[in-house]
Amino acid sequence: MTRLKNLQSWLKEKGVPAAFINSTENVFYLTGFLTNPHERLMGLFVFQDMDPIFIVPNMEVNQVKATGWNHEVIGYADHENPWEFIKESIEKIGISRNVIALEKSVLSYGRTEELLAIFNGAEVVDVEDQLNRLRVIKDETEIDTIRRAAKLADFGVEVGVNSLKEGITEMEVLATIEYELKKQGVREMSFSTMVLFGEKSGDPHGNPGNRQLRPGDFVLFDMGVVLDGYCSDITRTFIYKSSSDEQVEIYNTVLNAQIASLEASKPGNRIGDLDQVARDVITDAGYGNYFPHRIGHGMGINVHEFPSMSHLNNDILLEGMVYTIEPGIYIPGVGGVRIEDDVLITKEGYETLTKYPKELKIIE
Amino acid sequence: MTRLKNLQSWLKEKGVPAAFINSTENVFYLTGFLTNPHERLMGLFVFQDMDPIFIVPNMEVNQVKATGWNHEVIGYADHENPWEFIKESIEKIGISRNVIALEKSVLSYGRTEELLAIFNGAEVVDVEDQLNRLRVIKDETEIDTIRRAAKLADFGVEVGVNSLKEGITEMEVLATIEYELKKQGVREMSFSTMVLFGEKSGDPHGNPGNRQLRPGDFVLFDMGVVLDGYCSDITRTFIYKSSSDEQVEIYNTVLNAQIASLEASKPGNRIGDLDQVARDVITDAGYGNYFPHRIGHGMGINVHEFPSMSHLNNDILLEGMVYTIEPGIYIPGVGGVRIEDDVLITKEGYETLTKYPKELKIIE
Repeated sequence: MTRLKNLQSWLKEKGVPAAFINSTENVFYLTGFLTNPHERLMGLFVFQDMDPIFIVPNMEVNQVKATGWNHEVIGYADHENPWEFIKESIEKIGISRNVIALEKSVLSYGRTEELLAIFNGAEVVDVEDQLNRLRVIKDETEIDTIRRAAKLADFGVEVGVNSLKEGITEMEVLATIEYELKKQGVREMSFSTMVLFGEKSGDPHGNPGNRQLRPGDFVLFDMGVVLDGYCSDITRTFIYKSSSDEQVEIYNTVLNAQIASLEASKPGNRIGDLDQVARDVITDAGYGNYFPHRIGHGMGINVHEFPSMSHLNNDILLEGMVYTIEPGIYIPGVGGVRIEDDVLITKEGYETLTKYPKELKIIE
Repeated sequence: MTRLKNLQSWLKEKGVPAAFINSTENVFYLTGFLTNPHERLMGLFVFQDMDPIFIVPNMEVNQVKATGWNHEVIGYADHENPWEFIKESIEKIGISRNVIALEKSVLSYGRTEELLAIFNGAEVVDVEDQLNRLRVIKDETEIDTIRRAAKLADFGVEVGVNSLKEGITEMEVLATIEYELKKQGVREMSFSTMVLFGEKSGDPHGNPGNRQLRPGDFVLFDMGVVLDGYCSDITRTFIYKSSSDEQVEIYNTVLNAQIASLEASKPGNRIGDLDQVARDVITDAGYGNYFPHRIGHGMGINVHEFPSMSHLNNDILLEGMVYTIEPGIYIPGVGGVRIEDDVLITKEGYETLTKYPKELKIIE
């Protein structure tokens, strides 16, 4: 598997004999096996040349093999201590234990203690940054999965729009959207779905509730699904029945900002510039104080992943990156607009994977 | 606040000058403030006598105060390093830094490094076990919240039962249940809802899909909601239209096992015995090999929390504990039955908080 080989190359380059991978996301990325083991230990040891070792609860062993994993897998029962099996295996293969790579922001202090009891006195290095750098370039299978997830996000917006009628509540619309998505086989949303009406759309962290839809309201949808382990994330904003000049101006400013940022999306461009060009459009229109967040975030196995699309990011866009572009203007007490697409960097430019129309739509 | 005082008493008793609390659950338990800060740091320092210090992202500061938190709160912006503020505060109050309590299974290695750069050379002790012991006894507010969450779980089962008709799929029923719950204001299920038909109910880790309902099927529902930060969890199993003698025998065996375990639920009894009495009923009926999991789990802010209701647990039931009792029999390829209630230990016995009827019901 290319992904494992890439990590092994890095271990060789850095002179690190072993990496211990504990997060469900990175384990999925490297093994193809996706599960939430809850409090039970699931971990993968990757070595420079030797076969990796996958430790999972007994009940998962068959599933791991069914996934196509053809390296070693060690199962353990609930009454057994998996660290004893790990110790035995590591001692048997006799690798050097002077350095160990692990996920610093994920691995708990308790598990690090267990690991360092085996890799006694080892220097600890972080493997997360390298995994982020590998994961940031999506392969064709991943792009295909995200594309299908994005299509379901488009469908969710469509369901939401079709359900709008005067007096309906945010939660009723939200329930309808998720109902139709579940009927399409979606088991998990990539985050808590947002449906916000009127002044409530003016809070970028608003919570859907019993606010009823009235003419003149902004209607903001922000949602995504998890499909075969990959996420999508879309935001669309509409106006219900009657619109004010200010609403139209805010909407078109956000739309222009989004388009400017999309047009800057091609291999070789600086990531931070995508935030800057959108921010410039919004600032020039006089709304600079009402765009309080970064332009977007990388997306894949996690809905928020590497890279962070902030104006400070000096990294360069590369073919195969997938991220969101989501400028917004939020006027407290009045309302807000956000427009968000999932973007793929192609050989020569970009493709938006979410395709729901973006021209201002007044819903009658 | 009693909860903070209880933790402070423990710190004094153990001679530990400070505890750093990082999990959203324990922060919520101690502060009343519930949010998911994602990758941003949110942490609470508790000291023996001094006021606690709460560190949160800037955007949460007002919410924290609105929750009623009347101790110190330190906000930080995205471009600031919260550990610098922490260092400054800790140095200012001048407490001893020889020991620090933290959540060993939660705090990441990376954050532990940051913490130990401030508490340089400090001995690390685990605070989680003590917090589990505090959280295991629910107060009246908590019980009231769980009671309301359990009522919504009952309602979910009712919706599921009412939606059954020949040919409907598991996912369609699941979507209907969650739709109706969302209309009641539920924003989050406590875990991925399970609806399993026929032979699929024979896998305790089955996944709902496109299996259509047919006469003679078991229908297994397992679900719960999160309400105001607290969980519920119910399982009910039905038979659709025609039942076999074997199905009836399996059902009544599980029901008798569940009742036996409920009847053993009173203050002073050994927790492990609740598993044992249910296991004995199932083993005596000849199904001992088909009950592969523990009888239940503690429940509260987490859907699975302390105590683990396994036959090995020698702890004693105490008034105010809340846990699940959920025996099951699963025949691979044939089908399975599980019956689960949320149980509260009262002064003299128990009360089931989930109240949906449990007598065998053949759905016509």
